Amino acid sequence: MPHIQLEDSQRPGIGGLLAFRPGPARPLLDLAEVLLRKASPLTPGERELIVALVSSRNDCQWSKRAHGAFAAAQLPGGRDLVDAVCHDPESAPVPEKLKSLLQLAAAVTEGGKAVKPEHVDRARAAGADDVEIHDTVLVAAAFCMFNRYVSGLATSVPDDPAVYESLAETLLSSDYRTLGGYPRQAADPSSGAS
Amino acid sequence: MPHIQLEDSQRPGIGGLLAFRPGPARPLLDLAEVLLRKASPLTPGERELIVALVSSRNDCQWSKRAHGAFAAAQLPGGRDLVDAVCHDPESAPVPEKLKSLLQLAAAVTEGGKAVKPEHVDRARAAGADDVEIHDTVLVAAAFCMFNRYVSGLATSVPDDPAVYESLAETLLSSDYRTLGGYPRQAADPSSGAS
Repeated sequence: MPHIQLEDSQRPGIGGLLAFRPGPARPLLDLAEVLLRKASPLTPGERELIVALVSSRNDCQWSKRAHGAFAAAQLPGGRDLVDAVCHDPESAPVPEKLKSLLQLAAAVTEGGKAVKPEHVDRARAAGADDVEIHDTVLVAAAFCMFNRYVSGLATSVPDDPAVYESLAETLLSSDYRTLGGYPRQAADPSSGAS
Repeated sequence: MPHIQLEDSQRPGIGGLLAFRPGPARPLLDLAEVLLRKASPLTPGERELIVALVSSRNDCQWSKRAHGAFAAAQLPGGRDLVDAVCHDPESAPVPEKLKSLLQLAAAVTEGGKAVKPEHVDRARAAGADDVEIHDTVLVAAAFCMFNRYVSGLATSVPDDPAVYESLAETLLSSDYRTLGGYPRQAADPSSGAS
């Protein structure tokens, strides 16, 4: 049971929180959309894979399952690849560059100071550029926030895999703002917290 | 030295990163402004105090010093109070409700699953409502992101206390968007990553 009373108790994971507090919901959804869907040298599937790994390391079942489904829907390796990466990125069947970025994300998950020059050197040796390194660090950092937000308030986590597959289907035909439940037309970034 | 080459190397802490990647900079600054300045039952000074504690626990010197200065400038207890809270919230001279929320924030910093019903029960017994509990968790979670972003990319941390006092002065007469270097007029939340 969530630690606070959510009016929209039908919305699992982060959904009920976004409805509870629309002020921060808007920049949170904008951030997810920019980080995971907008232009980056990393594909949306690769970014979702990073999120699935970070959420797995943070033991955040909601984000692990939701973003694991989003990654599986967007990567040729599908569910098996996501499971292999969450189990152990080092032995997972991904190219060295992506592997090095996954290890960088795992370090960020431990803490900012856990990122050592060796993590960055390895990524660079595998061909990663500054934007790929930046985006990996920020995506991993952002999900250290989202994971703590949903787990820290103990929101509900459905068992049924169909819930996450349905969310993935919705996301692929729309965006994070729609998924989070606010229409893009109504956006007004200066309106502040509710 | 930062792990990536920042064009605007004169801007310490998060500043150079925001200039490097304007797409995510916008929702990040909107999020900081909504979480720390807009309507909440917690005062801006109390929220900055939570950030100073979280950043201290995450050993993020940039955020600890910047937000410590922002808290000191907005709380009657000033710098001494900020230092006492970062040293040990339990013995710091703050009312029980704020103390319980600081301990909740410290738990969030450890991880979402580190938040136990006891943390929430203590805050509630001290008079905290659902919005205060929510905002504490989200503010703490957000700075687990910001801390990892700046430390994970090893951005520079000036020694001179005047840098942070000057930032605090700018913030008090403007907002986080101005502080972060983008004019509010130019905001377009749908423009995506650079």
